[in-house]
Amino acid sequence: MSRSDKEREREMGVLQNARVWRLSRRATEIQASPIRKLVPYAEEAKKRGIHVYHLNIGQPDIETPPEFWDAVKSYSQRVLAYGHSQGLASYLNALSVYYHRCGLNIAPNEIVVTTGGSEAIVFAFSLICEPGQRIIVFEPFYTNYNGFASMASIELVPLETRAENGFHLPLREAIESAIDDKVRGIIICNPNNPTGTLFSYDEMETLAEIARDHGLFILSDEVYREFVYEGVHTSIFDIPGVEEFAIMLDSISKRYSACGARIGSLVTKNKKLHQAAVKFGQARLCSPTLEQVGAEAALKLGPAYFEKIMGEYKRRRDIVYEGLMAIPGAVCVKPAGAFYAMAKLPISDSEEFAKFMLSEFSHDNKTVMVAPGPGFYASPNRGLDECRIAYVLNTDALKDAMAILKLGVEAFRKR
Amino acid sequence: MSRSDKEREREMGVLQNARVWRLSRRATEIQASPIRKLVPYAEEAKKRGIHVYHLNIGQPDIETPPEFWDAVKSYSQRVLAYGHSQGLASYLNALSVYYHRCGLNIAPNEIVVTTGGSEAIVFAFSLICEPGQRIIVFEPFYTNYNGFASMASIELVPLETRAENGFHLPLREAIESAIDDKVRGIIICNPNNPTGTLFSYDEMETLAEIARDHGLFILSDEVYREFVYEGVHTSIFDIPGVEEFAIMLDSISKRYSACGARIGSLVTKNKKLHQAAVKFGQARLCSPTLEQVGAEAALKLGPAYFEKIMGEYKRRRDIVYEGLMAIPGAVCVKPAGAFYAMAKLPISDSEEFAKFMLSEFSHDNKTVMVAPGPGFYASPNRGLDECRIAYVLNTDALKDAMAILKLGVEAFRKR
Repeated sequence: MSRSDKEREREMGVLQNARVWRLSRRATEIQASPIRKLVPYAEEAKKRGIHVYHLNIGQPDIETPPEFWDAVKSYSQRVLAYGHSQGLASYLNALSVYYHRCGLNIAPNEIVVTTGGSEAIVFAFSLICEPGQRIIVFEPFYTNYNGFASMASIELVPLETRAENGFHLPLREAIESAIDDKVRGIIICNPNNPTGTLFSYDEMETLAEIARDHGLFILSDEVYREFVYEGVHTSIFDIPGVEEFAIMLDSISKRYSACGARIGSLVTKNKKLHQAAVKFGQARLCSPTLEQVGAEAALKLGPAYFEKIMGEYKRRRDIVYEGLMAIPGAVCVKPAGAFYAMAKLPISDSEEFAKFMLSEFSHDNKTVMVAPGPGFYASPNRGLDECRIAYVLNTDALKDAMAILKLGVEAFRKR
Repeated sequence: MSRSDKEREREMGVLQNARVWRLSRRATEIQASPIRKLVPYAEEAKKRGIHVYHLNIGQPDIETPPEFWDAVKSYSQRVLAYGHSQGLASYLNALSVYYHRCGLNIAPNEIVVTTGGSEAIVFAFSLICEPGQRIIVFEPFYTNYNGFASMASIELVPLETRAENGFHLPLREAIESAIDDKVRGIIICNPNNPTGTLFSYDEMETLAEIARDHGLFILSDEVYREFVYEGVHTSIFDIPGVEEFAIMLDSISKRYSACGARIGSLVTKNKKLHQAAVKFGQARLCSPTLEQVGAEAALKLGPAYFEKIMGEYKRRRDIVYEGLMAIPGAVCVKPAGAFYAMAKLPISDSEEFAKFMLSEFSHDNKTVMVAPGPGFYASPNRGLDECRIAYVLNTDALKDAMAILKLGVEAFRKR
């Protein structure tokens, strides 16, 4: 049967279930990365000889520490073998020491090493939700939570936070009113990607109380723990009495600028949950062996390392914030952590704006790529006037980029 | 409220939904690795000074090729950055060249690099099945398919194959009678783990015909492609007309003895399926960067590399087969591929036997660890008299191990 015959049959509805290779809902509904989908426009701009400042992705330019590279490059085993499914024993021990240094009483057997923070999140969603069950998330949120939800066949329940009050949490009543019998947990990223918001002890405690009262889990994404420029970081494990329902999600990607290593962790004191997470780990055998060796070496880096890095990020944060404040009509509460700012700009369609910057605008043969706001929302028509800016470039580049962004906004408004 | 109060309330059923942090079905039902659960017995044996020959896991002792190590150790980027979600462009190109060398016309944009073959399988299950839908699998099968099914919230429909006829496929009618409206695909591992069976062109063609007639996908796990000692390997892409419904699952773990690298691939010519797989890839960002660099270097190894390795594995296969045939009552058709034999032994409970070998038996202070049969079945009470033997030790060790296995069977029968 020729291809056109087949197509005709299909149009005629002759073939129904048979011979139509349908994909699943999760396959058809999973979003394309809203951050990566503008890449072709950036590539076109580069072909035209335009330098593109990438403020759109969370890929830091900071060098992966030499301790990581040295450990990887001096690895002397001749067989690159499977590691333990829970993680290499020495790496689990090193992680426990690191968490204690952070003031968190985490034992090695409360950790599962995962393939990136990504896998920790998919595991957590899958471990606590049946397909179709729900997790509350605060908008705007790390866009890949949408993809993880699709992969785990669960739903996100977005609750609004607002640029005007620094994207802090809604009132307890608003959160509780979103809880129905399908909701199994609340996910929070602290400090937050994409807003840079640092949630306070009181906010984390309120979430814990809600979880305790409603039998929910708290999923606490703490991959930016050290990236704090004002105030103090609160881990979910800083709150007393969370043992049964707290799940910490972690990653070395940003901490040691090792995004390509794919090493994360899931931490819980709930023994049944931990056992089930280990079984998930056993199914996929192990996380990359060599990178755990590198990560273990990086974990030995002390406060001096972070002081230097955070000093650099704080200078960058200040440049971005000042650059935004120089744009008439821009709204942004100074981000206290992570390395992002979610800015409200005087534009009506940030996706059009991002495309405009890559396709139509340039200044001295340079332009800026930002991440349009709607990708960080699950609710329709939200974030249309917002962009996420990742401050992952050096200070000179960033100053130039922010000046160009200002000119771009002006040009976009004059079109 | 104290812990005992809580427990009392729970027993009394006072707390129903609230304050009971239940896990999901997939979390509670996922199996512990049947291969790894005997590890504590092996550790005890080692503590008693007994040498344990590990025939229980598919971790080869063959050295990872120097080309892999050289590429990893001479990697000169200073930031270990995210790679493309679909895979590094140069690695995708190298994979396409490798597949062409295997006689398969696979373009780079028909591949998605995955984090191990494991992720390729979870992706495939999730891409074609709604939660609760089904995949047909031939028993005995790679035990981790059970775990992947749990993670994807799908069900496996096991169809029996038998040691007596070398674990070849059931008749077409038997396969078709298992198809109902929940079945979305058939998974086959060729050559097979755990049986070593090499499925013929005719068998693969029959599966393709069934898939075509019933609108199913074929998931073809070909990670042992080169491990063939008798006959010729048939890829699903050797069968004409499978473009819409064939999904090849692949991994470098065994091919280049790089199990800890976690580099696999999913290959399909179905464009919608490929696009959806890329979106799954985008959600979890990328597979490990450094290992793709190593894998790309390994892919350049030509036939001489495989000839040497396969010569070694064939000698091992012969030792295992002869060793099994020396055990009165053992049934095993000579395995034609992979590096496993699934042997029927004159024992009634292979899990008890495996424990006995580790806890009670030793010869000259040595013993053997095998993988009990039931772990490779989804149907209850199957494989009770079977063990999987992985021939991943050098020939001298293997000869000794098989002699000890024979003595162990005798001792177990005399208990």
